[in-house]
Amino acid sequence: MAMIVAVDIGGTHMRAASYSQDDIKPIKHQRIRTLASEPGGFERLLGVIEDVWVQGETVAGIGIGSPGPLDPHTGYLLAPPNNPQFHNFALGQKLAEHFGVKTFLDNDANLAGLAEYRFGAGKGHRFVLYLTVSTGVGGGVILDDKLLQGQHGLAAELGHIIVEPNGALCGCGFQGHLEAYSSGPAISKYVLGEIESGTKSVLKRDVNLSAKEIAQAAYQGDELAIKAYQRAGEYLGIGVATMLHSFDPSIVIFGGGVSQVGNLLFDSFNVSLRKHVFHPRYLEGLTITTAQLGDDAGLLGARALAEMKLGISKN
Amino acid sequence: MAMIVAVDIGGTHMRAASYSQDDIKPIKHQRIRTLASEPGGFERLLGVIEDVWVQGETVAGIGIGSPGPLDPHTGYLLAPPNNPQFHNFALGQKLAEHFGVKTFLDNDANLAGLAEYRFGAGKGHRFVLYLTVSTGVGGGVILDDKLLQGQHGLAAELGHIIVEPNGALCGCGFQGHLEAYSSGPAISKYVLGEIESGTKSVLKRDVNLSAKEIAQAAYQGDELAIKAYQRAGEYLGIGVATMLHSFDPSIVIFGGGVSQVGNLLFDSFNVSLRKHVFHPRYLEGLTITTAQLGDDAGLLGARALAEMKLGISKN
Repeated sequence: MAMIVAVDIGGTHMRAASYSQDDIKPIKHQRIRTLASEPGGFERLLGVIEDVWVQGETVAGIGIGSPGPLDPHTGYLLAPPNNPQFHNFALGQKLAEHFGVKTFLDNDANLAGLAEYRFGAGKGHRFVLYLTVSTGVGGGVILDDKLLQGQHGLAAELGHIIVEPNGALCGCGFQGHLEAYSSGPAISKYVLGEIESGTKSVLKRDVNLSAKEIAQAAYQGDELAIKAYQRAGEYLGIGVATMLHSFDPSIVIFGGGVSQVGNLLFDSFNVSLRKHVFHPRYLEGLTITTAQLGDDAGLLGARALAEMKLGISKN
Repeated sequence: MAMIVAVDIGGTHMRAASYSQDDIKPIKHQRIRTLASEPGGFERLLGVIEDVWVQGETVAGIGIGSPGPLDPHTGYLLAPPNNPQFHNFALGQKLAEHFGVKTFLDNDANLAGLAEYRFGAGKGHRFVLYLTVSTGVGGGVILDDKLLQGQHGLAAELGHIIVEPNGALCGCGFQGHLEAYSSGPAISKYVLGEIESGTKSVLKRDVNLSAKEIAQAAYQGDELAIKAYQRAGEYLGIGVATMLHSFDPSIVIFGGGVSQVGNLLFDSFNVSLRKHVFHPRYLEGLTITTAQLGDDAGLLGARALAEMKLGISKN
């Protein structure tokens, strides 16, 4: 039976795994450090793929996940953050030439969404909205059992929907995006700004202050820390309301580190979502839950993409 | 060859037409007044459908368009505005029973989008964003050659995406929606509010002031009227930027009366869109244009829906 090789290129690690059909567990799995600032990144990537290649088996295709922006239709990496060796890099084509098999590329958030739909929290749902809330905010959307990619492969960039015109500065350089309110760095930036303005907190003014440290302070009752997560949750509710009105999913799945803080974020999110959804039917039977696949979502999504495009899986 | 009967239920008129495959022109076409406040609306609808039924031909199905909210999956009208006889009305089922054929229902904006995709401005495009800017703002989205309906059939309610949290009151009762800034009534409301606040204008404080009258004043140089359309265009740009980031279409098609004012709206729209789209690739090869089908969009969309669901057309 044809094997799929899945590749997940992250900022700190590159991973590869080989899968047979019908088994969620890999035959082989390998992980190495990305070492983005050291030359030879592509050669290291070839090495980790070769490590999981099962001799004597037919490989039907390679699925690849990477941070965007990228072009899934051509397999081109455009400008993955913190990985300058791969800027404007024809990764799909180069891997196809080297290994002699078809390759399929998409961004990490789309693939995490696809993985949750195929193997995780979204199994059985046909309209899936996946949101990762982490260093950035990213989206992956499955509509009618199909991954939404868009004309340029840039659909579902849901961290960059506008929730507050002329609002907070986003990491992308534009203003008022959801990511500028609900991502980890946005939460930190808000707290630092408030401390600078004289708001009292157990937290110290430290440029490296993390959303995790703020969560710990919130659990200990620090009012500023609590307010920072409430604000992130409120904007997340506004953003998800717009997404429900746009996509009308049957499940919303939250991944990413920030979404693991639980009630701290989701109490205000739930109030905000219910306040902003304009028709109660959107919420009928809607499941709101957290991702199930953890660190494996990237690999399983890359695998699911290849199987989908090759017609091995039904979707 | 199997015939399709298309029905378009509007606030002022109900229309029906019969179509053979491969001809954009109807075999028969009929239009009557809706008379929403007079009883017997369903019987009048049966009559207008019977008028276009071609004796001796096989009718493969009936496609129906109506203002929402409605449930396309069950054929239920929920609460079409200004048409109380059809509230919570199992229209699809009742027509199916009466005529003995399959019926397919969706809202007017979705069907106008589907019509433009199949027969109008969007021909040849696989990712189509249709927006009607009129008394309301409505959306119809085709992704990968498929009409986006959503889990509850409430996807693409794009007049109700949030562009300004806690902003202007929308006709739906919620705040800050695109429709509350860019629809005809929103433009009128803004002008009336400004006149009340003492802003000078050739326009008089009149609750029936229409967006069309405001457009005429703008063409004559009235500053308040010009500013009202600029503001509508700016928010339209913000909303469409969010839609590009969500759907990544290759064409944006504007329908509806307000969108016919041209530069008055679209100059500021274009500036705003370019200001808010966060990556230039979204705009590469993107067509922005106006609808081609005019009043026939509703009927042609209802026809296209039936053909799509029956598998007569490829999509």
